[in-house]
Amino acid sequence: MRYNAGEYDVAVIGAGHAGIEASLASARLGCRTCVFTINMDAVGNCPCNPSIGGTAKGHLVREIDALGGEMGKTADAVTLQSRMLNLGKGPAVHSLRAQIDRREYSKVMKHKLELQPNLHMKQAEVVELTREENGIWQLVTRMDAVYRAKAVIIATGTFLGGKIYIGDVSYESGPDGMFPAAFLGASLKKLGLRLRRFKTGTPARVLKSSIDFTDLEVQYGDEPVIPFSYDTLTPPKNRAVCHISWTNEKTKQIILENIGRSPMYSGKIEGIGPRYCPSIEDKIMRFRDKPRHQLFIEPCGLDTEEMYLQGMSSSLPEDVQIAFYHSIKGLEHVQIMRSAYAIEYDCVDPLQLNASLEFMDFPGLYGAGQFNGSSGYEEAAAQGLVAGINAALKIQGREPMILDRAGSYIGTLVDDLITKGVTDPYRMMTSRSEYRLILRQDNADERLTPIGRKIGLISDERWERFKLKQKQKEEERKRVKSTVLPPSEALNRILVSHETSPVTTGVRLSDLLRRPQLNYECLKEVDLSRPDLPAAVFENVEIEIKYEGYIKRQKADIAEMRRLEAQKLPQDIDYTKISGLRSEAQEKLSKVKPSSVGQASRISGVSPADISVLLIWLARKKEA
Amino acid sequence: MRYNAGEYDVAVIGAGHAGIEASLASARLGCRTCVFTINMDAVGNCPCNPSIGGTAKGHLVREIDALGGEMGKTADAVTLQSRMLNLGKGPAVHSLRAQIDRREYSKVMKHKLELQPNLHMKQAEVVELTREENGIWQLVTRMDAVYRAKAVIIATGTFLGGKIYIGDVSYESGPDGMFPAAFLGASLKKLGLRLRRFKTGTPARVLKSSIDFTDLEVQYGDEPVIPFSYDTLTPPKNRAVCHISWTNEKTKQIILENIGRSPMYSGKIEGIGPRYCPSIEDKIMRFRDKPRHQLFIEPCGLDTEEMYLQGMSSSLPEDVQIAFYHSIKGLEHVQIMRSAYAIEYDCVDPLQLNASLEFMDFPGLYGAGQFNGSSGYEEAAAQGLVAGINAALKIQGREPMILDRAGSYIGTLVDDLITKGVTDPYRMMTSRSEYRLILRQDNADERLTPIGRKIGLISDERWERFKLKQKQKEEERKRVKSTVLPPSEALNRILVSHETSPVTTGVRLSDLLRRPQLNYECLKEVDLSRPDLPAAVFENVEIEIKYEGYIKRQKADIAEMRRLEAQKLPQDIDYTKISGLRSEAQEKLSKVKPSSVGQASRISGVSPADISVLLIWLARKKEA
Repeated sequence: MRYNAGEYDVAVIGAGHAGIEASLASARLGCRTCVFTINMDAVGNCPCNPSIGGTAKGHLVREIDALGGEMGKTADAVTLQSRMLNLGKGPAVHSLRAQIDRREYSKVMKHKLELQPNLHMKQAEVVELTREENGIWQLVTRMDAVYRAKAVIIATGTFLGGKIYIGDVSYESGPDGMFPAAFLGASLKKLGLRLRRFKTGTPARVLKSSIDFTDLEVQYGDEPVIPFSYDTLTPPKNRAVCHISWTNEKTKQIILENIGRSPMYSGKIEGIGPRYCPSIEDKIMRFRDKPRHQLFIEPCGLDTEEMYLQGMSSSLPEDVQIAFYHSIKGLEHVQIMRSAYAIEYDCVDPLQLNASLEFMDFPGLYGAGQFNGSSGYEEAAAQGLVAGINAALKIQGREPMILDRAGSYIGTLVDDLITKGVTDPYRMMTSRSEYRLILRQDNADERLTPIGRKIGLISDERWERFKLKQKQKEEERKRVKSTVLPPSEALNRILVSHETSPVTTGVRLSDLLRRPQLNYECLKEVDLSRPDLPAAVFENVEIEIKYEGYIKRQKADIAEMRRLEAQKLPQDIDYTKISGLRSEAQEKLSKVKPSSVGQASRISGVSPADISVLLIWLARKKEA
Repeated sequence: MRYNAGEYDVAVIGAGHAGIEASLASARLGCRTCVFTINMDAVGNCPCNPSIGGTAKGHLVREIDALGGEMGKTADAVTLQSRMLNLGKGPAVHSLRAQIDRREYSKVMKHKLELQPNLHMKQAEVVELTREENGIWQLVTRMDAVYRAKAVIIATGTFLGGKIYIGDVSYESGPDGMFPAAFLGASLKKLGLRLRRFKTGTPARVLKSSIDFTDLEVQYGDEPVIPFSYDTLTPPKNRAVCHISWTNEKTKQIILENIGRSPMYSGKIEGIGPRYCPSIEDKIMRFRDKPRHQLFIEPCGLDTEEMYLQGMSSSLPEDVQIAFYHSIKGLEHVQIMRSAYAIEYDCVDPLQLNASLEFMDFPGLYGAGQFNGSSGYEEAAAQGLVAGINAALKIQGREPMILDRAGSYIGTLVDDLITKGVTDPYRMMTSRSEYRLILRQDNADERLTPIGRKIGLISDERWERFKLKQKQKEEERKRVKSTVLPPSEALNRILVSHETSPVTTGVRLSDLLRRPQLNYECLKEVDLSRPDLPAAVFENVEIEIKYEGYIKRQKADIAEMRRLEAQKLPQDIDYTKISGLRSEAQEKLSKVKPSSVGQASRISGVSPADISVLLIWLARKKEA
């Protein structure tokens, strides 16, 4: 018997990485929020790797943090080991990655949600979602509770219609042994959402004491650790190490011999897997000539002996898993505690969403995370934050927060999803951004904290710290440009020792920093007026000076892009009536409903000629 | 496709409180052991109250610890608040009870299992159990893995055929949102086990900040805390408080009005619930005249705002739950995070077991915990320990560990289960023991540690500590009996102030301690030869002196009981052929197959006259 269980401003379905950020943002912006989870003990669970960040993903975490999200802070609190990746490459691709304590991460996040004013948590499976005529959403749980909400954010991850595959065994299940959301999918289809099946996978968890670490390469964390969050004033310590091993010819042979027993290759799984996070059998099938593949043995926590085998996800049968894991150096006698598996789930075609992550045809209904066709905890959290903020802003009658591609990876992520759609689970990569010299992890605060402040997610105290840092950066930039070092013996010794030409006249500090061989650190001895500033300030100033030319050029590109973005396209344009547009462009534009000429220009199938037609049509319309 | 996944000495199905003790004991005794759990994150989960111990249950924990089990140590490590219950009553019923941190308890236990040599942990659902002709057991998992083991311990708790009920909603599920064991039951029935349906229930978990604590009575822990374990040398600290509230007329009215919507009262649940742990609707229905029932608001952990409402379990629909919880003082606006529910599950008729907890008809197959028809974490752990030890001893060709009623509550528990059977989930109570003045929590080590040592579960270091304590007790007992206090003014002042007659001649310290008004503590000032001993030694000596007469009488009863226990009855007796036995006795004896005349005498339906017949029959048989 159904009963009225309560009314909320915002209801969030799912308390994974997307649902967490969505719930916290909405509640912090003053909206009465309720988050539903199938299992209260799995809030903020990391069903795959026990780590946060990584290439481009680290950028996302920094950006989430800069806007006032929670992922970075919690990751810092439970970091086991941290590294800045890609330090050998340019600053655009420097990315933070931290091993984290899986169970602690979940505990800390759950507690933050519990302590959040305006936020209620319910262990309940939402089985039905409908819209009343007045636009209010109704959610019905398996216990017949009916909740009403002005906005709903769907963040179901891999729970929606979840199905697990291991070899020829398959059954309905959410991730990590949780119940799936078995009923909501049908309700969403009935509502009119276009769903599809995606899949993802995870490797085995194994017992530490059954690994022979003797000959394995150790991977240590960076010292000192750089935290994700601008709020983490005491950086975490490295408390664990990882190890590296490799597959070999025997591994390959075992997998090739048994590939027919893979549910992927036998056609049992219809769902499409993440291209950039392939299973070991995918890697071996795709790169037949590669003699070996790297894997990382990562701790799942300080208080557990469970280890994660990064790079070794699989949906092969258990006996094959045991055989190929045992073929690997160090894992000859490894004991599997949890088997690797693939999971197939329902997600939505994100072309149905606008840049608020709201369904264009369903005002007040938002999607976030894997439900939108992405993969990864960080991608999920980023979308959760966008959806949560925008749901709250909409309820409060405020302008939505639209992040553009030039300002953030989060904006790039959203724009990619809603403009290009996805054919497989979307993963963020630095190569997805045309402005990556601007979108660095060191300046996420500069790019986004003013936005977070304006929205209302940045505290006064943090805002003051931010302003101080900005001032320090500006003053230091000025000092570096105005400081002239005399051609001393000490300076030339440094220059020569760094294989760059000595100077005979005075030289500007900024000109020295532009030389690729030099950096702040090595000039310390001769840079006598250098103030005592945080490392993050020096890092930022050095990058901005060193790459000034490139950055200037990207800023020009951004100006041009923003000019096109400023040319707004109403949602109700009938593209079939714009003569001159090719029919493919008419079709794509009608489907994506771009909000600007800029977004239109990024739709595949819309040509530069079509954009010219659109611009002319717009100009005429304005004149009319 | 099934594959050979490994061979073990002992396989344990389930990693709850029973499975944990079974696995650890078996592995520690040197048996290669594998424990299977449906969810690796739920090892040692406390799906009901976040507490260990309680009346009679505290005795069990002490006894488990005295034998070398783990529950007490882990409870001590995660204690939030501890109290010795029933201090106003006699020492027989003094019982320790600790609030514990639920998530920490699970984490610590899981880690202990992971670190235990000889023990493997597998996240897998066992779906089939069969016996090979050679007596080896085969377990098949859902992933088609076939494990072989010399002994199997079934400790499935409420997972076996688990089904959750909330009002008229019901679905297959294990406890706490876990998957049920859906397939094993059919396999066990096929094997020939007699299964039955029992049910249990749990109250809601609610959000701390939604409770109004203003007018609620606070319940503090004892200072200093007395630990459960003889291994805990630094006692835990109280780190949280509980609160007390009461149901009222409105609560009653709401429940009575909606009783027809209870799946228990509407007949939807067939399973039989625990008589001594009734739901709130049961309490209200059974005690219609009682105006109010007490409830305790208990913390679930330090890092969570979830609170447990002890005494308020229910299977009423959610809307009714909300209404009656809101009727209670302090809970007027309480936010439910997890709803109360009833769970029905398969368990076994324990008359099929012998005192090793082995199935009489299936050598090498053991049952433990709720699967045997008991309720409670402590009862489960106790049986797990017995089954684990006995499985290991059998494999090693050693004599089984049979604990009798006179030596422990554990022995009483096992004897009750296998002799009397159960009609509802069995809960330990001090009234179940006829020797309760002997079976105290303060002397569990004296009663059982020598047995644990002999079996091999007590370390040298602990054994030395135990022997020292025994020596201290003995010497102190001697001293107390030989010390004569002169009739001093100081002594008489103490006697008079404690309302007992002054003395005019010298008086033995032991005689003073026998006076009900006096205790060790109050005689301190005049007891000048008192050595510096641990509080536990004084406690023990005082009790043994004070109740010496009663204890002596119980010891005589025990001697008589043991005389009957020593009269062994072979398993293959054909009772139908013993003339003189009443037919009811023949039937019951054939079913229970008692191992001794003592056990036979406790079977309901077997009269003292039948026992005489048996004794005569036995005597004749020996003569023959």
